[in-house]
Formats: sequence, C-alpha cells, structure tokens
Amino acid sequence: MTYGPLPDTDLTRHRRLREQGSLDRADLDAILDAGFVCHLGVIVDGRPMVVPTVYGRGERDLYVHGSVASRSLAGDAPVCVTVTHVDGLVLARSVFEHGVNYRSAMIHGVPRKVTDPDEKTEALRLLTEHAAPGQWDYARAPSRKELAATTVLALSLDVASVKIRTGAPDDGDGPDAALGLWAGTLPLTATWGAPVPDPLLPSGQPVPDHVARREGTRHG
Amino acid sequence: MTYGPLPDTDLTRHRRLREQGSLDRADLDAILDAGFVCHLGVIVDGRPMVVPTVYGRGERDLYVHGSVASRSLAGDAPVCVTVTHVDGLVLARSVFEHGVNYRSAMIHGVPRKVTDPDEKTEALRLLTEHAAPGQWDYARAPSRKELAATTVLALSLDVASVKIRTGAPDDGDGPDAALGLWAGTLPLTATWGAPVPDPLLPSGQPVPDHVARREGTRHG
Repeated sequence: MTYGPLPDTDLTRHRRLREQGSLDRADLDAILDAGFVCHLGVIVDGRPMVVPTVYGRGERDLYVHGSVASRSLAGDAPVCVTVTHVDGLVLARSVFEHGVNYRSAMIHGVPRKVTDPDEKTEALRLLTEHAAPGQWDYARAPSRKELAATTVLALSLDVASVKIRTGAPDDGDGPDAALGLWAGTLPLTATWGAPVPDPLLPSGQPVPDHVARREGTRHG
Repeated sequence: MTYGPLPDTDLTRHRRLREQGSLDRADLDAILDAGFVCHLGVIVDGRPMVVPTVYGRGERDLYVHGSVASRSLAGDAPVCVTVTHVDGLVLARSVFEHGVNYRSAMIHGVPRKVTDPDEKTEALRLLTEHAAPGQWDYARAPSRKELAATTVLALSLDVASVKIRTGAPDDGDGPDAALGLWAGTLPLTATWGAPVPDPLLPSGQPVPDHVARREGTRHG
C-alpha cells in the first residue's frame, strides 16, 4: 500500500506521541468500516466542494454512488474522501493544548466509473450492507432500470493516510500542571436508538431481527 | 443572507418533501452550533483535500485555526466548510430508496486571515467555548506567544446552503408498500460520556461542574 504524505489534520495543533499517522492497512479498514458517511471533496468550477455521502468499502476500492458522482465527477477529476470519527474532547490545562480525540482516514485519487453490471451490483450491496447490515437480502433488490439510473464510482484505497489521536492531554508533565486544574477527556459515543416504524406500515408489522438487534449498540 | 445554489448532497438519491434545502439563517446557525468538527475542503496542488478541524461560530463568520490554515490557505484560495450531523438510517422497502436522515451545512468563500489581536482572541474564545463550554474561563488563557503562533481564519457565513432530511422512507405509498416488508428509521444519537481524568492528575482533583454536567447529554 502506497501512502501519500500525512496531512496535518489540525484537530489538535501539536503532533505528539498521542497523535500519530498509521501505515497499517488494518487501521484504514477499521476506520472505514466503523462509519458509513464520508465527506467527498471535489473541485467544481475551480472551487472546492465538500459533500457528505454514503460509501461502501471493497477489498481494493471505496465505492460512492449517485448524483454527486454523475454531476461533479464526470471527467478524470481528482477527489479526496475523508472519514472521521470524533471520540471525545481533550480538555487540557491551557486553552492552547485543547484538542480532539479522533480517528480519521483520507483517501486521494481519481475515481473510476463502474460500468460492469456485476461490479455495480456488488458495489451497491457493499454500500447497503455497510450502513445497514442485513438489508440487502431483506429489502427489494434494485431493478435493472434502477441500476442503470445509478452512477457508481470506485476510488482505489492505494493512496490513503490515517491519523488517530487517543488519550489524555499533553500538558500533564509541563509547567501548566502546577496550575492545579482538572484535565482529562470527555468521551463522545454514538449509539443506535430504537427502530421507528414508518407511520404508513400496517399495525403489528414486526421489526426484523437484523434491525432490532442494533438498538443500543455503539456506532463509530 | 445570500445563498449559493443548493448542492445535491447525495445522502439520499431523491429529493422529495422530506429532504429539503433551507434559506433560514436560524437553521444554518443551529446546525453549526450543534457540532464542533467540520470538514474543510481546500485545493492543494490542483487536488482537493478534505481535512477535519474544529471551528467556532461568530455572528458573521465561521472561525478555524491552526496549521492547516497557515499551510494550505496562505493565498486568497477558495474553501468549502461542511458540517454534517447524521441522525439515522432510512430503511425503505427497496434498496434504491434507502438513505440517511441528516442535517448538513455547507459554507463557501475565500477566508480572511484574522490579524486584529482582539478579534483573534475572541475567535479562539468562540472556538474553545463552542466545543467545551466553560473551558475558556477555566483553563489558562493563551499567552501572547501562543496567540502569535496561532493562525486564525474567518470565513463569512454569507454564502451557505443547508440541507436537512427527516422522517420516514419515501416508498410507503408506492407499489413497494405491497411487499409487506418492515420499513422505518434507525436513529443515531451521540452522547457525552463520563469525564476521564488525566492519569497525571493528583488524586482527588474534582471534575469542574461545567465538565461534569455534560455527562449523559446529547451532542449534535
């Protein structure tokens, strides 16, 4: 795996031991697999545009779909996809040392339009299962017409960078420790709630197991 | 307030009544105030780069700070800042109608470097209080040297767009309703956890009220 230069993500101003890049493909996969919404950066009329969109991860590619794909990415234009999980606030003794615990992956490349029907179907399966495991087999599959109306782009995972910050503030052994202030982290956790039935459902329609069992589980 | 064209955010493929843009400044402020990490899009060497970073909101500007600011945004380069809250999955009867409930704000412009020391201090106060209310007065304030080492950029809130999707799937009154499948939404909520003290703190150091009272509260 070839990594580009690690960008300075600015979630904290200082890169120390607790904030570091990773060259481990497993770290990249873990960050991608923990989410389902990315921020896709494209250049439109010479200006950057950052659009939230869903994605799925394959072995070699990240897949995105839909109208952004078809409209903004018609040519051989470079894109950047960033996935970020915010794990909490880092509350230091000084304002200057405040920061965020997070995991972030950034993927760079020129996406490839998926034209092979089998790969397209598999990409949509990955996209669906990524966000909603079990739904691909449960819900009605895309028709031929729906497939044709969907643009799917594949972005190689070859050029990517990962940054992770974990743990306590960095000023616990500096002069500010003498201030006698509390310091630490405030964790942030995303949790799936109880399924909300569509009001148009007939009463008594049971929630399928693959949906019901996510309630109360952690996301991210 | 002047809004640019509403981008098609692709979080769902179809824009119907449940997914719409807003021209209300209050909606923009609410989305910005509910978060503290944005995705900043810049163009570096002709390629888009999307970087997660913290922000603060003023009356007229969004503020970001730090090394990304100083490195990537030296010139009069256009940027795009996007803030997204994912509120849940939309589980429809057909795969094609699956989507995401979300609130997203996108701000476009050429940022201004903040040079006035008072505005810079106020911007850092907003940044700090935005993420960690109460910390600006509690923690040690930035020294003159720290202030000088910090680049702060202001991005006007004048050109922005907001998109929000809420509610049930869109196929409850279509032909797929006859499939007899469960459909609805699966909410996702971020919650602040219990404060984790820095292991280097002396034992018995009390957690300040403004930190302790966030435990169990919703974020986003």
